[in-house]
Amino acid sequence: MSFTHLECSRPCGAPALDPRTRHHLCRCGAPLFARYDLAALRSWTRESLRDREPTLWRYRELLPVFPGDTPISLGEGYTPLLHAPRLGAELGLSALFVKDESLNPTNSFKARGQSTAITRARALGATTVSVPTAGNAGCAMAAYAAAAGLDARVFMPRDVKRAFVEECTLLGASVELVDGLITDAGRIAAQRGAPLGWYDVSTLKEPYRLEGKKTMAFELAEQLGWRWPDVVIYPTGGGTGLIGMWKGFQELEDIGWVAPGQRPRMISVQADGCAPIVAAFADGRDTAAPVTDAHTIADGLRVPSAVGDFLMLRAIRDSGGTALSVSDEAMIDGMRRMGRLEGISAAPEGGATLAALDALVASGQVDRDELVVLFNTGGALKYLEVLSTSSVSE
Amino acid sequence: MSFTHLECSRPCGAPALDPRTRHHLCRCGAPLFARYDLAALRSWTRESLRDREPTLWRYRELLPVFPGDTPISLGEGYTPLLHAPRLGAELGLSALFVKDESLNPTNSFKARGQSTAITRARALGATTVSVPTAGNAGCAMAAYAAAAGLDARVFMPRDVKRAFVEECTLLGASVELVDGLITDAGRIAAQRGAPLGWYDVSTLKEPYRLEGKKTMAFELAEQLGWRWPDVVIYPTGGGTGLIGMWKGFQELEDIGWVAPGQRPRMISVQADGCAPIVAAFADGRDTAAPVTDAHTIADGLRVPSAVGDFLMLRAIRDSGGTALSVSDEAMIDGMRRMGRLEGISAAPEGGATLAALDALVASGQVDRDELVVLFNTGGALKYLEVLSTSSVSE
Repeated sequence: MSFTHLECSRPCGAPALDPRTRHHLCRCGAPLFARYDLAALRSWTRESLRDREPTLWRYRELLPVFPGDTPISLGEGYTPLLHAPRLGAELGLSALFVKDESLNPTNSFKARGQSTAITRARALGATTVSVPTAGNAGCAMAAYAAAAGLDARVFMPRDVKRAFVEECTLLGASVELVDGLITDAGRIAAQRGAPLGWYDVSTLKEPYRLEGKKTMAFELAEQLGWRWPDVVIYPTGGGTGLIGMWKGFQELEDIGWVAPGQRPRMISVQADGCAPIVAAFADGRDTAAPVTDAHTIADGLRVPSAVGDFLMLRAIRDSGGTALSVSDEAMIDGMRRMGRLEGISAAPEGGATLAALDALVASGQVDRDELVVLFNTGGALKYLEVLSTSSVSE
Repeated sequence: MSFTHLECSRPCGAPALDPRTRHHLCRCGAPLFARYDLAALRSWTRESLRDREPTLWRYRELLPVFPGDTPISLGEGYTPLLHAPRLGAELGLSALFVKDESLNPTNSFKARGQSTAITRARALGATTVSVPTAGNAGCAMAAYAAAAGLDARVFMPRDVKRAFVEECTLLGASVELVDGLITDAGRIAAQRGAPLGWYDVSTLKEPYRLEGKKTMAFELAEQLGWRWPDVVIYPTGGGTGLIGMWKGFQELEDIGWVAPGQRPRMISVQADGCAPIVAAFADGRDTAAPVTDAHTIADGLRVPSAVGDFLMLRAIRDSGGTALSVSDEAMIDGMRRMGRLEGISAAPEGGATLAALDALVASGQVDRDELVVLFNTGGALKYLEVLSTSSVSE
């Protein structure tokens, strides 16, 4: 195995940390990154993937496991990269794709991060894991904790959609509904768990969810024949996916699997009612100011402040990308068009990427011959209440 | 390509039919089976699968396509076969697995059959497709019709769970709610569609959904290293999955990929409130009498009479299997145990397989060292209303 150490993502100069003991944030407050012996991994061949299972664990040399560790897997990752010719035609694009993360366990991309995080949590001796969540991360954590035999404690805003609560409960988690937003849920989860030694898997407050998410970059490369797309349009709440993919690009380039210098432009999509990264990007700031009165139907985008804000902004800028927000109405329209034209079940966050693409095409920021990937981070099923169903005959 | 003709599944002796034109049932009323040049396929090697995508189309030599056909694919099939050690320990079984079909597009195994059926429908020139459905088949058809650019008309019982209606609508289908059960929906769909030339994809009333479903057998073999399990426990409404797997076993044996003589016992699970196959099996009959007053929370099992009844009964008997029914309460208990112990999101139909296994272990019909596969045919998300959520703290 090539997993070697943890280090500050900033980096602040703090010494490397031993991943065989528990670590959450760097002493400077920044997220920690898992690091690997990338020089040694230059002897790892793409050919070896031929005989591996179609889950994110096919890339295990670049995942945080040690000899003897057993991944907690429910079939996550290696989701389809679907060509979307009808949506493309509507927009005048010749190479539009949708990475359909709804085909993960618990119907969302959150399964990736929880598979790696819970694998590490168990290896580190945790018996109870906890998470503050806008919904899907809690469901995913509940599933992997169940599969690992760990107790799961999920903290959600009281007004979260009912399906999230019910799915978490079905998967054996204890759910606590709290007043406020995910940031408030995080505060209460930490208060409850700290004295009891719960392992906190809050976004970017432990180093391993990011490692699961970065495999989205690996899959893009493998599915496109070891090249990157031109444009990646990604809905960003906590931002682990975007930050993770940026880290994944670097790692695959460093081990020689993809030629450097051709990374995609990373487009961050947020909701009009909660767009801290969009504001910070527009103002040229390195960090984002917390949003007050955050509101959107896309629970995953209702994140008023993110511990990884500076990492998101860095990746967007380094890639030549941008950040923009869309309305809730445009997200729903995006969900409906993905469904009607391509048969893809999209969450509002997925619909948001299509709404953003509309704007980028209109403004000329995406060229018609570019290879564009929209990330549908989850399915519609937990969000059905946001849709009306006026076309049913009775 | 090796797809050659259609023939009666009975068989009644009718001549072979040309699959380049539309056919639904045999002139004798029995389902039609797609047939292949299996002798020629003995030169097809398992090795060829190494470089193929993880969908059911990896087995395209045994699927109903001709040169130039483009499969309509949304990433269906090649679902995980999950080891279930905690459930196994609870039951005293050493090798219990769950084939988790919830990781298909639209969250159920119905995606398999619709991928192949809609691929053929489009190749045959259909512009409108229709289906009577208890829920999931309609959602899956809607998705594949959208991806194929076809109009979709879905006919459902009026009392179906709301999530099915909403998902179908999101995926662009026109939904008509009808009084009665799936059999009534089928009658009305046929009345509406016949004069208009709609392509009817009712269960087993066209030959191609079965072909998608049979790939579950192929995947079992590939995922178990080219052997069959000892026992397959499968929830049967229309029965396409069970009949399809039995056909798939034969085909893989005929091309030499799996040794003959070791097929699993096929266990059909139905609901106490709708168990026509269980009754016919117990009485030693070759066909099933229609159930009156069919009722169960498992919409997919609320099928009072099935055109493929004789094929189900034949497969169950030939395999040395059995048929049994379980209560709605036992299904819900099964859903909760799959969730809590293994992190698997199960539909009531999936929960029913676990409830059946409880009974089979208790009666000694399954041995503790047998390799048992439960089929979780779909996820819990469209069924959340059947669960209470009493464990949430407020």
